[in-house]
Amino acid sequence: MKIALVGVGKIARDQHIPAIAGHEGLTLAATASRNASVEGVEAHTDLASLLEARPDIGVISLCTPPQYRYADARLALEAGRHVMLEKPPGATLSEVHDLIDLARKSGVTLFATWHSRHAAAVSAARDWLADKTIRSLEVTWHEDVRYWHPGQEWIWEAGGLGVFDPGINALSILTAIYPRALHLSNATLTFPENRDTPIAARLSFADPGGAEVSADFDWRKEGDPAWDIRISTDAGEAVLSEGGAKLHVDGNRLETPEADALGGEYPGLYARLHDLVSRGESDVDLSPMVHVADAFTLGRRLTTDPFQF
Amino acid sequence: MKIALVGVGKIARDQHIPAIAGHEGLTLAATASRNASVEGVEAHTDLASLLEARPDIGVISLCTPPQYRYADARLALEAGRHVMLEKPPGATLSEVHDLIDLARKSGVTLFATWHSRHAAAVSAARDWLADKTIRSLEVTWHEDVRYWHPGQEWIWEAGGLGVFDPGINALSILTAIYPRALHLSNATLTFPENRDTPIAARLSFADPGGAEVSADFDWRKEGDPAWDIRISTDAGEAVLSEGGAKLHVDGNRLETPEADALGGEYPGLYARLHDLVSRGESDVDLSPMVHVADAFTLGRRLTTDPFQF
Repeated sequence: MKIALVGVGKIARDQHIPAIAGHEGLTLAATASRNASVEGVEAHTDLASLLEARPDIGVISLCTPPQYRYADARLALEAGRHVMLEKPPGATLSEVHDLIDLARKSGVTLFATWHSRHAAAVSAARDWLADKTIRSLEVTWHEDVRYWHPGQEWIWEAGGLGVFDPGINALSILTAIYPRALHLSNATLTFPENRDTPIAARLSFADPGGAEVSADFDWRKEGDPAWDIRISTDAGEAVLSEGGAKLHVDGNRLETPEADALGGEYPGLYARLHDLVSRGESDVDLSPMVHVADAFTLGRRLTTDPFQF
Repeated sequence: MKIALVGVGKIARDQHIPAIAGHEGLTLAATASRNASVEGVEAHTDLASLLEARPDIGVISLCTPPQYRYADARLALEAGRHVMLEKPPGATLSEVHDLIDLARKSGVTLFATWHSRHAAAVSAARDWLADKTIRSLEVTWHEDVRYWHPGQEWIWEAGGLGVFDPGINALSILTAIYPRALHLSNATLTFPENRDTPIAARLSFADPGGAEVSADFDWRKEGDPAWDIRISTDAGEAVLSEGGAKLHVDGNRLETPEADALGGEYPGLYARLHDLVSRGESDVDLSPMVHVADAFTLGRRLTTDPFQF
């Protein structure tokens, strides 16, 4: 399966290119990127010229920033190619609804990825929680934006989501492991006075089952990140830590041999992509993005000190 | 068909009660409202006691503010009653998704209303546009918040939507008459420095068909409101004015005798409710609310002078 990558930036180099290289069914056949390229791979400066030059490439993986993804996704779907979208799948919900319709009409696969759902212990956490009575769940997603998003101006521009860019990873796990649908009841978003997206957010969710569910996102944590979900249940306390990589119940680690064998989040995504395309199916779950849109809609806004890189 | 009204406020008195009274198939059998009641109608102070006391009332119409609607909607659906929701159908998209699931499981009707879609000339505008090439469309929705929302504090609280409360009426018309799905490409939201919701907003939409589509919402217009949609096409200029009540093409009024016979927006809504319940169907179109959530997510925020009633 030949694949082209659009947007050769940090996430492409760190994750997509190694994951494609590591999958025996996939070949990186070309890239499209305004200024960057991958050594030894055919390079185009835009997707339109790539699509015209290479009708043999059936799959397009988009890892440009979300504000710029829709136009390329549309172009690829209209050209009858399968499309994989980095998270979040777009800058707006309505444009993703458009893409879903277009993929259906074109009879191709659309895959909106949530890489954190492929972290090693996420499935184990979902399975463990399925028959427990949940009392409370607290998400803590704290990291240093200067370390994890060095110089990424787009993340601070309107539509770039700010701290929800990592926070949506937590929400993608939460919506994958929680046995019921949750909905946002309360949110506070803290914006640096010189930026258009928040640097911190605090969310509370209502659970029809009665548990207290909350999330705390903060980009001002220096040193090691904290990407943890702590769940108090009738059968003990579970901690899903390191962004979903490890699960402990009452301090004892639950092994996840099957997940570990897949080799990580992005290898998991590309395995899923290969599977979806082979079966002619799509996979677009918007629930993490809906919670983010709800937080922006419902949230109270606070202003804090200016942010400089 | 016996119906109970929850939330006896301005919109209930101005619109819902007369519309129910005017429909020969509907009877207002009870109300639930913390402080208010309707003369001659059984009054409860909360929905739970109403549901318990009156199992014979099959339909619950909710016109409380959106922040407080979910809990009551859930209560009514769980009690197996049909539910009609004022616009917007909730404070968050995820809670409305919950209600859709719950209504399906309970086998009852859920009707998310958009009263402006029942304005006299909306269907005529949709039909007229269907075969035209649209060059541009501009929504102008300007009104005086002090006149139209006197003392309504909830509208300024987070989740109350601010100027999107009337603006979503315009979006409900736009999404009803436009021949294609649009998606938001750009937004600017202006917040009074002492309030949690915007007093003005400017939106731009991308149209796969290439037209320029924009909307301007402003609550600072004194005197007569301007609730207009101006559409430039290959076959002339259409103006849908007075909130959807009148349609002119190149200055000539198009008559709408069928719509006029229905007697207005809320009579149209209650006729539709009666029809949905009779047929055992639901009608929940979230597209106007998705555009609002997208505007809050994508929009740049500006701050303006404080607002006082």
